[in-house]
Amino acid sequence: MKISIERAALLKAVAQAQSVVERRNTIPILANVLIEAEGDTVSFRATDLDVEVVDRAPATVERAGATTVSAVMLHEIVRKLPDGALVQLTDDQRTGRFTVAAGRSTFSLTTLPREDFPVMASSEYSCNFSAPAKALRRLFDKAKFAISTEETRYYLNGVYMHVADGDNGRVLRCVATDGHRLARIDAPLPDGAEGMPGVIVPRKTVGELKKLLEDDDMQIAVSVSETKLRFATPNISLTSKVIDGTFPDYTRVIPTGNTKRLEVDAAEFARAVDRVATVSSERSRAVKLSLEEDKLVLSVNAPDSGAAEEELVVAYADEPLEIGFNAKYLLEIANQVDLENAVFLFNSSGDPTLMREGSDTSAVYVVMPMRV
Amino acid sequence: MKISIERAALLKAVAQAQSVVERRNTIPILANVLIEAEGDTVSFRATDLDVEVVDRAPATVERAGATTVSAVMLHEIVRKLPDGALVQLTDDQRTGRFTVAAGRSTFSLTTLPREDFPVMASSEYSCNFSAPAKALRRLFDKAKFAISTEETRYYLNGVYMHVADGDNGRVLRCVATDGHRLARIDAPLPDGAEGMPGVIVPRKTVGELKKLLEDDDMQIAVSVSETKLRFATPNISLTSKVIDGTFPDYTRVIPTGNTKRLEVDAAEFARAVDRVATVSSERSRAVKLSLEEDKLVLSVNAPDSGAAEEELVVAYADEPLEIGFNAKYLLEIANQVDLENAVFLFNSSGDPTLMREGSDTSAVYVVMPMRV
Repeated sequence: MKISIERAALLKAVAQAQSVVERRNTIPILANVLIEAEGDTVSFRATDLDVEVVDRAPATVERAGATTVSAVMLHEIVRKLPDGALVQLTDDQRTGRFTVAAGRSTFSLTTLPREDFPVMASSEYSCNFSAPAKALRRLFDKAKFAISTEETRYYLNGVYMHVADGDNGRVLRCVATDGHRLARIDAPLPDGAEGMPGVIVPRKTVGELKKLLEDDDMQIAVSVSETKLRFATPNISLTSKVIDGTFPDYTRVIPTGNTKRLEVDAAEFARAVDRVATVSSERSRAVKLSLEEDKLVLSVNAPDSGAAEEELVVAYADEPLEIGFNAKYLLEIANQVDLENAVFLFNSSGDPTLMREGSDTSAVYVVMPMRV
Repeated sequence: MKISIERAALLKAVAQAQSVVERRNTIPILANVLIEAEGDTVSFRATDLDVEVVDRAPATVERAGATTVSAVMLHEIVRKLPDGALVQLTDDQRTGRFTVAAGRSTFSLTTLPREDFPVMASSEYSCNFSAPAKALRRLFDKAKFAISTEETRYYLNGVYMHVADGDNGRVLRCVATDGHRLARIDAPLPDGAEGMPGVIVPRKTVGELKKLLEDDDMQIAVSVSETKLRFATPNISLTSKVIDGTFPDYTRVIPTGNTKRLEVDAAEFARAVDRVATVSSERSRAVKLSLEEDKLVLSVNAPDSGAAEEELVVAYADEPLEIGFNAKYLLEIANQVDLENAVFLFNSSGDPTLMREGSDTSAVYVVMPMRV
């Protein structure tokens, strides 16, 4: 291989690929990135055996070829090269060395054979459709905070993407829950997605997805099978195994009969929760909401450290209610709100509470109360 | 106590005081800040028994008094209060609670008795002088990177401040070393400092000092005894024990006969060292400097990961030389250089190397070579 490539294009491609690489690895080649040059393109492929990212960049290819080098080291080198540099990448089959040259700097890296690099087998996908990056980003961004980190409940360690009945017809839906809170986000069903099997997209894949979905106007090609899924733009493709498990029936968790309605400025609410939670003990972090007509009092009482109280003017017209929540959960759902107001629907102090953004039902959140 | 104070003034005073508090404490009251209100001033005092900071801020004192509350919690609360708020601080002797109120928020914190707070005994200082903040900041900022972290060599865990003979007469001098590198920084001797005993200023004190020395034009009152020292501005005073030990005779470490002179653009040199060090192994981090007439080649050879080389155009007119250094040490001293050029003076590949900024001898650095 012998190619020249702009430092900026190289940095972007390598940065995106290398983030998949796990820092601690028992299999040496998983620390490497597979570089393949052909035609007028160079591609960088990295994997942890569950997720694979391939990044393509335009390059002047003088001699085609392929090899693997340390992803982290290649990224570090390119990052430190001066802005605007033209970088030469050369692979010497005889010495097994890979050379990175730019200006007066030359780096020679050890390689591992390209044949040893585990390229993810391409599957048959049962469903292929195209969706706007903006819609997909919203689905995953708003759901991911509720992903469980409990490894024993592995089937909750991701976002459940599936087709469902929304309030206005069929929707593409993402759901995540850890048993304490739940997020259910809907987007219009893209053409061709109707037959999509429901899949649990792992946490790491959700994180890596971000870089494909940055450009609002981009159309993303989505391919789904029972065991794998793939998101692709012309320059990047991300292939991931899905979690082999059954996502629980979340619909029973979402309350439908909650009638006590609180409407509050979401940002003001979040700041007040954050303030009163300052005095709470590390362990409980319980915040009490006391509701009366058009008045909300947030309070925390932690015998060891002290107490805090803050009053907010809100819209509330139902009977008085006292209910407690984990401050962290309240903050996280309040921070999902893009509109000005958050609407909470309560039943009693022991029942799950529903939260949505204004009157929009395409994003709803459920949070379990706690005793205070 | 009952006072009102601007949130911004309160935040600044509390932030500066609380940074002294150690996060892990076996003595509960050391987690607290002592608040004392009298006249038209409130002061915040925090200590770890080795360093004490007192911060004063103007306040409207309705009722004088004193108490102690958790420094971290008070700081967190004030930080989260809205910008521009007027804060009421009230101490209720009967309930033992301290109230922080602003707008619609009220916080009630547990207190510990002011009598239990260990106020550092005021000493007799044998030497008192005044020095510009800018000069003091330079002395400590440029020396501190060389402070040793080896606890067994406790007498190197600080900056040795003393009076010495500089190139142009008597100077106030700060020296730090960890045995591998050394920094020696001089400032004009302030009036009244001639008789100052040499003291080793602990690492933590050097860090806390930063906040007193922010304002270039401020004059700092410095008081020194054999066991303690004190830096004060009208609003903050920092008192610290000094390290009870003898700083080694550093003068013998500073080479005087080095004649091979390299002059190099300091920023360009640092970037090149950083780049070639990318391929070095975590353990050794050795960089080789190969000098020929007006040419410097930096190289690293790490059998496991690869090799790197970069050439720089420099000013060098002596016989060829090869010498190796720890990349981290080279980077750190190159980053001390405020002027454009760094001047290195070498003897042989086995001898300590001297570095200074251009022709300025008021800051010199010594770095030990390593075998490459």
